[in-house]
Amino acid sequence: MAGTDDPMTRPRYVGLPTFMRAPYAEADWSDVDIGLVGVPYDGGVTNRPGARHGPREVRNQSSLMRRINQATGVCPYELARVADIGDAVVERPFELTGAHDQIQAFYERVAAAGVLPLSVGGDHSVSLPILRVLGRGRPVGMVHIDAHCDTGDDYLGSRFHHGAPFRRAVEEGVLDPKRTIQIGIRGGINDRDVWGFSHDSGMRVVYMHEIPALGIDGVIAEARRVVGDGPTYLSFDIDSIDPAFAPGTGTPEIGGLTSFEAQRLVRGLSGVDVIGGDLVEVSPPFDVGGNTALLGATILFELLCVTAEAVARRRH
Amino acid sequence: MAGTDDPMTRPRYVGLPTFMRAPYAEADWSDVDIGLVGVPYDGGVTNRPGARHGPREVRNQSSLMRRINQATGVCPYELARVADIGDAVVERPFELTGAHDQIQAFYERVAAAGVLPLSVGGDHSVSLPILRVLGRGRPVGMVHIDAHCDTGDDYLGSRFHHGAPFRRAVEEGVLDPKRTIQIGIRGGINDRDVWGFSHDSGMRVVYMHEIPALGIDGVIAEARRVVGDGPTYLSFDIDSIDPAFAPGTGTPEIGGLTSFEAQRLVRGLSGVDVIGGDLVEVSPPFDVGGNTALLGATILFELLCVTAEAVARRRH
Amino acid sequence: MAGTDDPMTRPRYVGLPTFMRAPYAEADWSDVDIGLVGVPYDGGVTNRPGARHGPREVRNQSSLMRRINQATGVCPYELARVADIGDAVVERPFELTGAHDQIQAFYERVAAAGVLPLSVGGDHSVSLPILRVLGRGRPVGMVHIDAHCDTGDDYLGSRFHHGAPFRRAVEEGVLDPKRTIQIGIRGGINDRDVWGFSHDSGMRVVYMHEIPALGIDGVIAEARRVVGDGPTYLSFDIDSIDPAFAPGTGTPEIGGLTSFEAQRLVRGLSGVDVIGGDLVEVSPPFDVGGNTALLGATILFELLCVTAEAVARRRH
Amino acid sequence: MAGTDDPMTRPRYVGLPTFMRAPYAEADWSDVDIGLVGVPYDGGVTNRPGARHGPREVRNQSSLMRRINQATGVCPYELARVADIGDAVVERPFELTGAHDQIQAFYERVAAAGVLPLSVGGDHSVSLPILRVLGRGRPVGMVHIDAHCDTGDDYLGSRFHHGAPFRRAVEEGVLDPKRTIQIGIRGGINDRDVWGFSHDSGMRVVYMHEIPALGIDGVIAEARRVVGDGPTYLSFDIDSIDPAFAPGTGTPEIGGLTSFEAQRLVRGLSGVDVIGGDLVEVSPPFDVGGNTALLGATILFELLCVTAEAVARRRH
Amino acid sequence: MAGTDDPMTRPRYVGLPTFMRAPYAEADWSDVDIGLVGVPYDGGVTNRPGARHGPREVRNQSSLMRRINQATGVCPYELARVADIGDAVVERPFELTGAHDQIQAFYERVAAAGVLPLSVGGDHSVSLPILRVLGRGRPVGMVHIDAHCDTGDDYLGSRFHHGAPFRRAVEEGVLDPKRTIQIGIRGGINDRDVWGFSHDSGMRVVYMHEIPALGIDGVIAEARRVVGDGPTYLSFDIDSIDPAFAPGTGTPEIGGLTSFEAQRLVRGLSGVDVIGGDLVEVSPPFDVGGNTALLGATILFELLCVTAEAVARRRH
Amino acid sequence: MAGTDDPMTRPRYVGLPTFMRAPYAEADWSDVDIGLVGVPYDGGVTNRPGARHGPREVRNQSSLMRRINQATGVCPYELARVADIGDAVVERPFELTGAHDQIQAFYERVAAAGVLPLSVGGDHSVSLPILRVLGRGRPVGMVHIDAHCDTGDDYLGSRFHHGAPFRRAVEEGVLDPKRTIQIGIRGGINDRDVWGFSHDSGMRVVYMHEIPALGIDGVIAEARRVVGDGPTYLSFDIDSIDPAFAPGTGTPEIGGLTSFEAQRLVRGLSGVDVIGGDLVEVSPPFDVGGNTALLGATILFELLCVTAEAVARRRH
Repeated sequence: MAGTDDPMTRPRYVGLPTFMRAPYAEADWSDVDIGLVGVPYDGGVTNRPGARHGPREVRNQSSLMRRINQATGVCPYELARVADIGDAVVERPFELTGAHDQIQAFYERVAAAGVLPLSVGGDHSVSLPILRVLGRGRPVGMVHIDAHCDTGDDYLGSRFHHGAPFRRAVEEGVLDPKRTIQIGIRGGINDRDVWGFSHDSGMRVVYMHEIPALGIDGVIAEARRVVGDGPTYLSFDIDSIDPAFAPGTGTPEIGGLTSFEAQRLVRGLSGVDVIGGDLVEVSPPFDVGGNTALLGATILFELLCVTAEAVARRRH
Repeated sequence: MAGTDDPMTRPRYVGLPTFMRAPYAEADWSDVDIGLVGVPYDGGVTNRPGARHGPREVRNQSSLMRRINQATGVCPYELARVADIGDAVVERPFELTGAHDQIQAFYERVAAAGVLPLSVGGDHSVSLPILRVLGRGRPVGMVHIDAHCDTGDDYLGSRFHHGAPFRRAVEEGVLDPKRTIQIGIRGGINDRDVWGFSHDSGMRVVYMHEIPALGIDGVIAEARRVVGDGPTYLSFDIDSIDPAFAPGTGTPEIGGLTSFEAQRLVRGLSGVDVIGGDLVEVSPPFDVGGNTALLGATILFELLCVTAEAVARRRH
Repeated sequence: MAGTDDPMTRPRYVGLPTFMRAPYAEADWSDVDIGLVGVPYDGGVTNRPGARHGPREVRNQSSLMRRINQATGVCPYELARVADIGDAVVERPFELTGAHDQIQAFYERVAAAGVLPLSVGGDHSVSLPILRVLGRGRPVGMVHIDAHCDTGDDYLGSRFHHGAPFRRAVEEGVLDPKRTIQIGIRGGINDRDVWGFSHDSGMRVVYMHEIPALGIDGVIAEARRVVGDGPTYLSFDIDSIDPAFAPGTGTPEIGGLTSFEAQRLVRGLSGVDVIGGDLVEVSPPFDVGGNTALLGATILFELLCVTAEAVARRRH
Repeated sequence: MAGTDDPMTRPRYVGLPTFMRAPYAEADWSDVDIGLVGVPYDGGVTNRPGARHGPREVRNQSSLMRRINQATGVCPYELARVADIGDAVVERPFELTGAHDQIQAFYERVAAAGVLPLSVGGDHSVSLPILRVLGRGRPVGMVHIDAHCDTGDDYLGSRFHHGAPFRRAVEEGVLDPKRTIQIGIRGGINDRDVWGFSHDSGMRVVYMHEIPALGIDGVIAEARRVVGDGPTYLSFDIDSIDPAFAPGTGTPEIGGLTSFEAQRLVRGLSGVDVIGGDLVEVSPPFDVGGNTALLGATILFELLCVTAEAVARRRH
Repeated sequence: MAGTDDPMTRPRYVGLPTFMRAPYAEADWSDVDIGLVGVPYDGGVTNRPGARHGPREVRNQSSLMRRINQATGVCPYELARVADIGDAVVERPFELTGAHDQIQAFYERVAAAGVLPLSVGGDHSVSLPILRVLGRGRPVGMVHIDAHCDTGDDYLGSRFHHGAPFRRAVEEGVLDPKRTIQIGIRGGINDRDVWGFSHDSGMRVVYMHEIPALGIDGVIAEARRVVGDGPTYLSFDIDSIDPAFAPGTGTPEIGGLTSFEAQRLVRGLSGVDVIGGDLVEVSPPFDVGGNTALLGATILFELLCVTAEAVARRRH
Repeated sequence: MAGTDDPMTRPRYVGLPTFMRAPYAEADWSDVDIGLVGVPYDGGVTNRPGARHGPREVRNQSSLMRRINQATGVCPYELARVADIGDAVVERPFELTGAHDQIQAFYERVAAAGVLPLSVGGDHSVSLPILRVLGRGRPVGMVHIDAHCDTGDDYLGSRFHHGAPFRRAVEEGVLDPKRTIQIGIRGGINDRDVWGFSHDSGMRVVYMHEIPALGIDGVIAEARRVVGDGPTYLSFDIDSIDPAFAPGTGTPEIGGLTSFEAQRLVRGLSGVDVIGGDLVEVSPPFDVGGNTALLGATILFELLCVTAEAVARRRH
C-alpha cells in the first residue's frame, strides 16, 4: 500500500492533518472498522480550559506518526480499516448537559454504523456520553489511566463535570466498577472521601505512590486481572503523565508517569477485548512547544494498536 | 502617604498582587469610592477560552503601575479612595445565565455600598450583568472600545455570549444606544447584518478603517459628542488593540489600535461623567510573555484616572 | 448559504483546517475559480528555515477568518468559487531546481484547469515556478510587498534562492519589470548593488524610509499607476511587516509596515487585474504565539477579496 | 471547615494568591504555628538572576494545591495552624550583607512569635540568615536536596553568595555538619576541592551518580540516619530536580532527580524533627510554561506535611 | 573587501557571534577607531533583572546585520575601523559602586587607546562609569532616548541604580544638562518630582505624549538644536520602544515608540558630533522570541552609522 | 591554571561563547589534541529543519560547563589539549552531496593536523562525511545512541539524508557494522524493513523497549562487548533522549532515554578507544527554553571526557 500516493510516506508537513494521516471519512462510514473521532468540547473543566482545541492539535502532531509499532510489531492498518471520521461537534456549548446530549447523539450514529470509536477530547466529561452509548445494556469494564479518579460528586453546582464522569457512568449502569481499574492517581485532595465512590463501588485504584513497588509489569498484570476478557473501554487522561512530559493540560499534577511508562502500560493491554477508548485533556493553550499534542498522538497510536488487535480477533 | 510602608514604593515583586497595589478590601467597603473588581469568568466565549484567568494576571502585572499619570498629571489616589474589592466569584460556572445572575448579585452589593466599580474580566459577556445594575432605571451611555460591536444575536444556541451583551443591554433598557459609541470595529464578518443592531438602534460605530482619516483626536471628539455629559460607562475590550501588542486574548483581530493610540483615546475622555467601566478579554493562556496583562493593567490605570476625576467632580 | 452545516458558522476549533474553511478539492477542480494552494517548501532560504511549515499553520489560523470584509464590503465567496485545492508537494526536496520543477508542474495543472491560484509558501523562491506558468508568453506586472527586492544574483553557489526569484523571472521573460512595484524595502545590505537589477530593469522600488512622506494612500496610488490595467501578480512577503507583528519569518527586518498599513495597501489594489498571488515566508518555528500565521491568513483574505473582484469583473 | 467560604474549595483562579490559599497574616502572628514566608531576593546569584520573582509565582501556582496529601494521608491544616505571613522584604537590595541582615531581622520576629518558618526563595544565599536565627545557640541538622553542595568559598569577591551559605552556617556555628546530608549533587566543577568543606566538616554527600545503586529508599534511610532525632532544617533547591521538570532556575544541571523521586524523598522524612525549611531558586523568568513554580508549590506542600507532623508531635 | 573569507557574507548562523560580525580584538586595539563593547552587568536594576545577558544575545542576533545602511547609504566600515573589543567584565558583581569602578577602569583603557566606544548593556546604571571617562574635564551633551529620565535620586538605599545615572553624571560634572535632551519619557510615576532634576538642571524632556504633535521630524530638529555641534553622547534605552516591539527589557512601559520611529530618530542625528554611545536594558530572559535582541542589534547598527560619520568627519 | 584570566572562572554570561569556553583556534591547530567543531548544516533533514543553528546555541549554553566531571573525576583539559576549532562551513548549502563534500574537505584538514574531532551538528547526515575521513582505509566501530537506526535507503529521491548515513558508511567501507551498536531505537516505522540493513549487516540494535529488562548497566556491557578495543566512533543523536528533556530536535520520538540515563551510558564508555564523535540534531528553533542546547553541551562534555581519556591512553 505504500507508495508516492500514500499520505503516510509524504513529507509530514504537507496536506490537511487528519488523525494519523488516515483517510478522512466524514460522511460514509460503511468501510470503517475503527473511527478516530475528535470531541472538541471543554465545557466540563473546573479550572484551566483549552481542551476544546485538543483534537485539532493532536491531529496536527499526529502527522509524525507512522504505520507500524516498532515495539510490538503491530500494524493497525493491516488489522482493521481505520479512518478519521470527524468531530462530534457541540453546536450549543453553553449548556453542559445539552452538550453531552449532542455528543451522545454523534456516538449513537457511530455505533449504528458498526464503527468502534477511539476519541480525542476535549475534557474528561466527554467520556460519559460515549459510555452511555458503548455500555448501554451491558456495562463495560475500563482501564482508566489518569491522575484523578474522576468519580467525584457534584461540584460547583453541577452533577456533570470533568471530575465525575465515571461515578455517573456507574450510576447509570453503563460502567462496571468491579471490572474497572484506575492507574496513576495522585495529587492533593480537599476531601478525604473525594474518590470514595471508586473504593465503595469496587474499582481497583492504583495510586502513583504504589507504582515503584508494583513496577509497570505489576500494574499491567493487575489491569489484565481486573478487566478479564470482558468488553473493556480504555480511557487515557494525558494528565496521568508528569507535567514535564505533558505540560499542555488543564489540571497538571506533579509526580506522574513518564511517557515511556505510559507507553508500556498501554502496550501491556494487548489481548484485552477493547470496545472503544479515548485520549483526553490535551489543552493546547498550555502546551508550550507542542509536545503534549505529540505525546497525545503517540498514546493514541498505542491505543489504536491494541484496539486493532481486538477488532481483528473478533473478526475471526 | 508615600513612605517605606507604602506598598507602591516597595520593590514591585514583593507581596500579594492586589490591583495597582491598592489596599485590599474584601469585606468592608465603607471607605471605598472606586472598587477595582475581578470577574474571573469566561463561560461566554465562543472560541478560545482563558479570560477567567485575566483578573489574576492583570493584578500580577499591575504591580508595575505607579501613582501618577505622567501624561495628564492625574493622581487618582488623591481624587478618590481606591481599593481592590476582590472578585465577583461565580460559584456555578457551568450555566451561563445563572453565572450572570451571580455576577449581578455581586454588583448589587457594590452599588448598595456606594462604590463605583472598575472591573477586569473575564469575557465581554460580563458587562451585561454589570450594566443591569449600573443602568437600572436610567439607561447609561457608553464609550465602547473593541474590535467587535458585541451587539450580535443568538449564537450557538444562546441569547447570551461575549458577542451580544450590548444588544441585550439595550433591549433590557439599561444602555442608551443613542449615547453609545463603538470604536475600533474591524475584521471579517459572516453575516452582513451581524452588527445591524448597532446601526439600527442609533449607536455610533467608528470602524478601524475610518480612523486614519478621523485621527485619534477626531475619534475623541466624536466620542465626547455622542456621550455628552450624561452618565457614561466605559467598556474596553483588549482586542481593540492589535494582536502584536495584545496577543493574550480570545478573538484576536489583525489591524487594530496601537497601545499608544488606545491610551490617548482613554485620556481624551477626561471630563466625561464616568459611572463605571471594565477592561475585558485578557486571556493569559494566550499571553506569550505576559505583556497583554501589563497592557491591560496600564489601560485600567488610564480608566481609573478619568474615573477618579469624575468621582472628584461629583463630590463637589 | 449560511446555516448549521456551513463550516464558516461552526465553532472555529472544529474539523480539519482548510484555508479559510473553504471546501477542500484535492482532485476535481472543475468548479473552482480561485484555488488556495499550499507550497510547503523552504529549500531556497539562506538563513533560518521553517517556511515549509507555513501552509499548515496558515490553514490552522485561517479558521478565524470569516466571509465578508468589513472594511470593503466584499464577500469573495459571492464573487467567485473558492476552494482549498491542496498542496504543491515537493517529493524531492533535496535538490532546488528539481523542486522548483515539481512546483511548476503543479501549477501547470492548475492553469490547465482554469483555476486562478492564490498560494501560501514556503519561501519566496516558490514565486518563480508559479510565475513561469502564469507569465508564460505574456510577462505579467506585479505588486510586490516585501522587506527585500529579491532580485539578487547568485548566492551561496546557486542561481535560485529566496533572494533572487524576480531577477530570474524577468530574465526568463515572465515578469514585466516596467509594471512591477516593490514596496517596503529596508534593512542593511552587503553590496550597494544588491538590488541594482530592480532599478536597472525599471522596477519601481518604494523603500520603507520613503513611506512616511508618501503616506499609505500615496503608495497605493503609485502601485496602481505602475501596474495599470494589465494582468498583475500580487506577491506578499510577510517580512514586509515589522517583526513585532510578524516574528514568525526567516529574515526579519526591523522597522517594517504595521499590519494595519499592510491591510490598507492590499485593499487599495481593488480594481487591479489580479491574475494570481502569493503570501510567503511565514515560518512557524519562529512564530512565538502563532499570530504571524494569523496575520498571514488575514492578509490572504485581503488578497482573496481583491482577487475575487478581478475574477468577477472578467466574468462580465 | 470546608464550605463555600473556604478559599480551598473555590475555583482556583479567583482571589489573591496566598501560599496554598492559606489565610494571609501579615501583622498578627499569634495564631500561627507554621508561617509560609516569601524571600524575594536574588542578589546572591552568580549567573542567571530571577529568583526574586519566585515567591510571587509559587504563590500563584500554589492555588492548585489542596488540603490533604493523598500519598501519606496527612492534612497539615488539621495538625497545625498554617498561614501565609508575607515576605521578608529587602528594602536595600543593592548590598548583599545588608540584605542578609534585613532578612535575618524578619526571621528574628518570626522566631519571637513562636512561628516555625517554611520559606520560599529567592536564591540559596537566603538560607544563611534564616539559619542564623533557627540555629542560634544550637546548631541544627539539615537535609539538603540540591544539585550543588553550596559549601563553596569566596567567589567573585564575596564571602556570601548562593554557592556558599552552608559553609558560612557551619563556620558561624548554626549548622551541625555531622547531622547534615546533601542529596542530588552533580554537574561539572572547576576545582576538585570546591565542595571539600562538605567532606572535611563531616557532611554526608550523596551524589546523583550514587542514587541508582542506593535507590530512593536507600537515600531516605541514609538521611534519617544522619539527622537522627535532633532538630533538623530542610533545604530544598529546585535545581536538584532535572531541568526537564524544573527549567525555571538559575543554575540548571542536567541529569537530576525526577519530580516523583523528589516527592518520595520528602515524604520519607516523616518523623524527622523538622524545625524549619525552605524551597529556593525557582526563577520565573526562565520558567517556560510556569510548571517549575507549580513543582515548587508541590514540593512546598510536601515540606509542609512533614513539618506539620513535627509540630503536632511536639505539641503532645 | 567582500569575499568568501568575509564573515559578513557567510551564512549568518556560522562561527562565533561578534558584534556585527566585526573582527574581534580583545587585546590589541591599535587599529580600532570604534570599539563595540559589551557591559554584562545588571546589578543596578530595581525590578526585573537579566540585562547582564544582553551583550551575548545582541551579539548573537547581530549576525543578521549587514554592511550598508540602505536608508542612509552609510557604510560604517568604509568610514572607520570597527571592532568588537570584548566585554567590560565585572569581576565583583555583588557590590554596586565597586562594579561601577571596574567598568570605569575598562573605559579608561578604551579611552587611552584612542578608541571611541559604542557599548551594549547591561542596565542603564553603566552609562555613569562610561560618562565619567568620556566627559571628564569636559561635560558632554547627550541625546537620550528612553521611557524614563533616569535622573532620580536615592532609591532602595542606594545613590546609584539604573534610574539615576544622569543625575549623578551632572552632579559629577561629566554631563552638560543644557545640552541634554531626553526623548520618549512616559509611564506612571510615584512622585511628581521624580524627574524634577531633569527640568531643574535644564535638560529638554520630550514626553511621549508630545510626539504626535511634534512629529518625528520635529523631535529630531529639537534634538539637533539642543546638542548643537558640541561633543555628544548617545544613550539608547531599549525600553523607549513599545513593549510589543521590545518585550525583552526590565521595566517595560506601555505606549512607546515604534521601532521604525526609533530608527528614524537615530538616523536624524547624522551630523551630530558623536563621541560615544550605548544601547542598554536588553534583558534576554524576558525576550520571548529573541526579537528584542535583534532590535537592539539594529539600533546599534544605526548608532554605529552616525558615529562612524562623526569619526570620519573628525579625521578630515 | 585557574585564575582571574581563565575564561572558565569568569561569570558565564561574558565574552564570546566558544565550545566549553575552550580556546578558539580557527587557524593554527598545531597545539590541539581534540578539536571541538561545529557543523551548521541541516540540508539532510526530512521533516523539521533548524539544526543548522545547533552549533551556535550549543556553544552558547556550553558556557555553563565546567572543567571536571564530578561523577567520574575526569578533567579532560588535564588529559588533552582541547580547542574550539571553528565551523565546517558549507558555502553551498543548496546541494546535498556538494555540501557533504565541503564538510569532508574540512575534516581532511582536521585529520591532516592530527586533531581528533568532536563535532556538533547539524543534522545526522553530517556523520557520513566525517566517517569518510576517520574510517578511510580502516572501518571504525561505533556506539550510536539515537531514536532511529539511520540505516535507511533512498528517501524523497535522495541516497543521502539524515536517515541513511550509516548505511552509506558501511557500503563505503568506512564503518564496521559488526562493531556497531545502536541504542535507544524506537517509534513507529512505515516499512517493516526500514532498518533491515542494521540487522542484515550485523549491527547490534538495542531497542528502547529492551532497556527496562537490560538496565543501563546491561546496555553499557553490551556496547563494550560490541566495540571491543578497536577504534570507535561515538555518535549521539539528541533525539535518543525523550522530548521532555530534549524538545529542540527535528524528529522527536516519545518514550526515550532520560538525560541521566544518557549521561550514564556515555560515562560507561570510559576505556573505549574513541577516535572521534559527534552530537547532532539539536534544533534551536524548536528548543523552547533553550535546555536542549544545554543538554547537548552536557552530553558533549561527557563525550569529551571519555575521548580525552582515550587520547591520554594512546599517548602512553
